[in-house]
Amino acid sequence: MIRHTVSFSLVHAPDSAEEQEFLTSAPALLRAIDGVRDFAVSRQVSPKSSYRFQFAMSFEDDASYTAYDQSDAHQEFVATRWQSEVTEFEELDFVAYP
Amino acid sequence: MIRHTVSFSLVHAPDSAEEQEFLTSAPALLRAIDGVRDFAVSRQVSPKSSYRFQFAMSFEDDASYTAYDQSDAHQEFVATRWQSEVTEFEELDFVAYP
Repeated sequence: MIRHTVSFSLVHAPDSAEEQEFLTSAPALLRAIDGVRDFAVSRQVSPKSSYRFQFAMSFEDDASYTAYDQSDAHQEFVATRWQSEVTEFEELDFVAYP
Repeated sequence: MIRHTVSFSLVHAPDSAEEQEFLTSAPALLRAIDGVRDFAVSRQVSPKSSYRFQFAMSFEDDASYTAYDQSDAHQEFVATRWQSEVTEFEELDFVAYP
């Protein structure tokens, strides 16, 4: 199991209708893609980081993660929403140790 | 509920006994501190980041998080282990949206 996370900030004003729309519609689209499990939306609240939100989701294995990444739905989302509405982001992926 | 995460890399050689010792003894110490819940140790596996591990833990509220942060056990851990064995780290904290 792989926990894929992306922390990010948006171009939209804090607590604006546009911010709320992104944080509602993007998860609805992404969690419907094959292989996506346990999709979660969070606020990033540490003052030690400038990231304001996080999406997190789990994949059964590398194959399902790659299929998601390359899916038309994900690629279209990145091209039409992510690239224009996100100002900074960082991807971290986790598997249980050891 | 707050999910506190810290992604990091170590001075120790990958898969060395020293690395394994840190990744075993540090969680044993930290998860015993008052207020710490659901402590998890992960490998960071995205090639898009240089961080190699993550500790994650939950706190009921800001007060319990602050008490942990300021506890003698945590402060001593930071001074005696973290500062000398960790080469880079990033703290991100999450609460559920909305």
